[in-house]
Amino acid sequence: MTFSPEIDAAIAAVRADVARLHGELVRYGLVVWTGGNVSGRVRIGEDPSADLFVIKPSGVSYDDLAPENMILCDLDGNVIPGTPGSDRSPSSDTAAHAYVYRHMPEVGGVVHTHSTYAVAWAARGEEIPCVITAMADEFGGPIPVGPFAIIGDDSIGRGIVDTLSGHRSRAVLMQNHGPFTIGADAKDAVKAAVMVEDVARTVHHAREAGPLIPIPQQAIDSLYDRYQNVYGQNSDTRR
Amino acid sequence: MTFSPEIDAAIAAVRADVARLHGELVRYGLVVWTGGNVSGRVRIGEDPSADLFVIKPSGVSYDDLAPENMILCDLDGNVIPGTPGSDRSPSSDTAAHAYVYRHMPEVGGVVHTHSTYAVAWAARGEEIPCVITAMADEFGGPIPVGPFAIIGDDSIGRGIVDTLSGHRSRAVLMQNHGPFTIGADAKDAVKAAVMVEDVARTVHHAREAGPLIPIPQQAIDSLYDRYQNVYGQNSDTRR
Amino acid sequence: MTFSPEIDAAIAAVRADVARLHGELVRYGLVVWTGGNVSGRVRIGEDPSADLFVIKPSGVSYDDLAPENMILCDLDGNVIPGTPGSDRSPSSDTAAHAYVYRHMPEVGGVVHTHSTYAVAWAARGEEIPCVITAMADEFGGPIPVGPFAIIGDDSIGRGIVDTLSGHRSRAVLMQNHGPFTIGADAKDAVKAAVMVEDVARTVHHAREAGPLIPIPQQAIDSLYDRYQNVYGQNSDTRR
Amino acid sequence: MTFSPEIDAAIAAVRADVARLHGELVRYGLVVWTGGNVSGRVRIGEDPSADLFVIKPSGVSYDDLAPENMILCDLDGNVIPGTPGSDRSPSSDTAAHAYVYRHMPEVGGVVHTHSTYAVAWAARGEEIPCVITAMADEFGGPIPVGPFAIIGDDSIGRGIVDTLSGHRSRAVLMQNHGPFTIGADAKDAVKAAVMVEDVARTVHHAREAGPLIPIPQQAIDSLYDRYQNVYGQNSDTRR
Repeated sequence: MTFSPEIDAAIAAVRADVARLHGELVRYGLVVWTGGNVSGRVRIGEDPSADLFVIKPSGVSYDDLAPENMILCDLDGNVIPGTPGSDRSPSSDTAAHAYVYRHMPEVGGVVHTHSTYAVAWAARGEEIPCVITAMADEFGGPIPVGPFAIIGDDSIGRGIVDTLSGHRSRAVLMQNHGPFTIGADAKDAVKAAVMVEDVARTVHHAREAGPLIPIPQQAIDSLYDRYQNVYGQNSDTRR
Repeated sequence: MTFSPEIDAAIAAVRADVARLHGELVRYGLVVWTGGNVSGRVRIGEDPSADLFVIKPSGVSYDDLAPENMILCDLDGNVIPGTPGSDRSPSSDTAAHAYVYRHMPEVGGVVHTHSTYAVAWAARGEEIPCVITAMADEFGGPIPVGPFAIIGDDSIGRGIVDTLSGHRSRAVLMQNHGPFTIGADAKDAVKAAVMVEDVARTVHHAREAGPLIPIPQQAIDSLYDRYQNVYGQNSDTRR
Repeated sequence: MTFSPEIDAAIAAVRADVARLHGELVRYGLVVWTGGNVSGRVRIGEDPSADLFVIKPSGVSYDDLAPENMILCDLDGNVIPGTPGSDRSPSSDTAAHAYVYRHMPEVGGVVHTHSTYAVAWAARGEEIPCVITAMADEFGGPIPVGPFAIIGDDSIGRGIVDTLSGHRSRAVLMQNHGPFTIGADAKDAVKAAVMVEDVARTVHHAREAGPLIPIPQQAIDSLYDRYQNVYGQNSDTRR
Repeated sequence: MTFSPEIDAAIAAVRADVARLHGELVRYGLVVWTGGNVSGRVRIGEDPSADLFVIKPSGVSYDDLAPENMILCDLDGNVIPGTPGSDRSPSSDTAAHAYVYRHMPEVGGVVHTHSTYAVAWAARGEEIPCVITAMADEFGGPIPVGPFAIIGDDSIGRGIVDTLSGHRSRAVLMQNHGPFTIGADAKDAVKAAVMVEDVARTVHHAREAGPLIPIPQQAIDSLYDRYQNVYGQNSDTRR
């Protein structure tokens, strides 16, 4: 398949981002062996259903993730033939990523990991309460739990979309499974994956030792609003 | 704005220190993504209220923290125009750092992190008891908790100053938020940030498994006194 | 002892793999000092009892594990004289590895570590329940416990073989001792060692904080079946 | 002070070892900032009371520990004037190291850290029970607790010597303080420091989740005996 030079450039940029961002999953200890995956949407034109996305190949070492090994897919999760990496199988979570991109046109990146503490909350099917200001900043409230769903149909993707639609949180803990995060682009979704493990770990340890002090809802709202609108550089906003 | 060569040299030295010291936050695992910040005071002359300080830009990766990216501010937290980095926004915690420098002229460095175990104690609003000799050495007693306060006015800065004024501890756990530390200079404040997480983690694990043995107050006093006055090299004292 | 060029090449390949794979034990924090060991089978011909295996020398630093330092043994655990490394003693766990290779001809790799959380379950003699989908994928159910056995006869090897024969799990927690893992080759056994520590840690933390949600047996079966047959690249299957 | 060429060579070798071994404390996460120290005995002749030892300077960064920065002391803890590093203060734990060398002539290395889990047991004044075979191998039984003692007289050194004399363990947990380890040389003492943290962490987590299975005394004795006499290379025995 051939694309216009503009789209080729957009694909190349997302390939480079997605390849590089897998290194952040390693840096922050969110993945072991070949587990975990990052994808990024390539915006093609007016109609978001014609968009593409770039995702990691299945079962490949994090040491071997160059941009040309990333795999280009359409929003039904089909590999685009004749493109770099198209001779390999994409991540086994590709259908879930595709479902999210199809149903949430504002989402530009999706990340999935089995990070330790986020999975621990997921194994109990328990949402993470918002008791630290960094969580209010980043997620605007608790991290919700999604349904138990296994690979093989659309149930994982649907669980993510149903849980996160209209929710402030960019992270969902899929029950017995682990976190999926979304973002404006792949980098933003990776940031959410890093932060959800950070708050999962911190709140886990906090609660081990005694009762937690809740943060008033008004303060949560105020923190979330400020962080979404003021934090960071004007030329490099968080989202 | 232009300064005398002496002040220019002092600013350059603090810029270099503050940039480098952010790397220590990463080395000791106290921060993730762009969270956390270090600042250092630049002493200008007789009147401490005319001093300046250097702080990290907001929302910038730890991989991109060169001295010329650091931001120079006055003690009201205003960026000094026309200086390197002045086209960027300073850390969103700049107002809190400025408040501390205004009200505690002896303080030469301030650090803020969301390090895991220190935040865990903060989420319960619980001070860390002094049950290990390293804590007596470094902090001279328990690590106190400061009030719940959110960004937007002087309440964070005031909470830090009110809690630490006249207290041996150079660290305060701001409730539901995390640790702020102060020091004679930026390096000393970073050391306090490293040590407060170390003792928060150790005492957390110690108490998980059974009752702790208190250290007699007289022994705490003796350890603190020795460490503040004898430890380290004559030519390179701790403070 | 001399071998045909084909067997020499097979030995060289396993030496290189085993040497390199020890680095993965370090990378994932599964070992300290000189503890832990990886071995790999060298298939010689039709009769698996004539096979050889390559294992780490005893008590040697992970910094000094070059292919030529690895030790070649027969399936009774005797060092093959006149081969590189044969002047050194093999790992003190060599007899256990040899027992596994003698009694499980399908096994091509064996790994032993004292990784923290796997040993913690082993010190209680408690199997790890299958409550996360990654565990269902990888191990197809709980991680079983093997008997208490000490070095000096075949009791460790026999405990591993008795526990894992006919079991989906490629990992066993030897009581009061630690995990042994098996695989189609050394890399597969190392993957199992990495994953068993990952699930041991995650389920440990999950259960600290409240009751776990079981995964229905049918879902475990389905996940295990898919992962064993579909995951990864066609040209580089997991096993 | 001048020495014979043989003694100069022995001092240089211990300086190099002690400098390098501090890096192992960092590698295994046993120390933060400038905490922790390693020393090594220099054997001078027939009379062990004439021996010397080499120790780290006080309050110096682990990045700056070259052999020539190490400090040479006599067994009363006095710095030997006119030797490299003698213009600096030795570790504030020098008196404790010296006491051990004076009273235990077989000891060739001493290490002190504030490693997290070992300190956690020390803060409860609780010995670590021997429930894992790696602990039986290395320490031959439980890790004992020494008395509460603070810097300023011989009480720390005396507590170490009184607790470890005639004990199989090379590690003692000084109450409210942390581990001190001894060994045949500095490397052996560092190994003990690495292993004591490893078992402190593992047994801590094991016991969090339920009752531990004891190892029969006869099995402990057998494991200890084998490990001390058989493990490792003939040319490079553990001790």
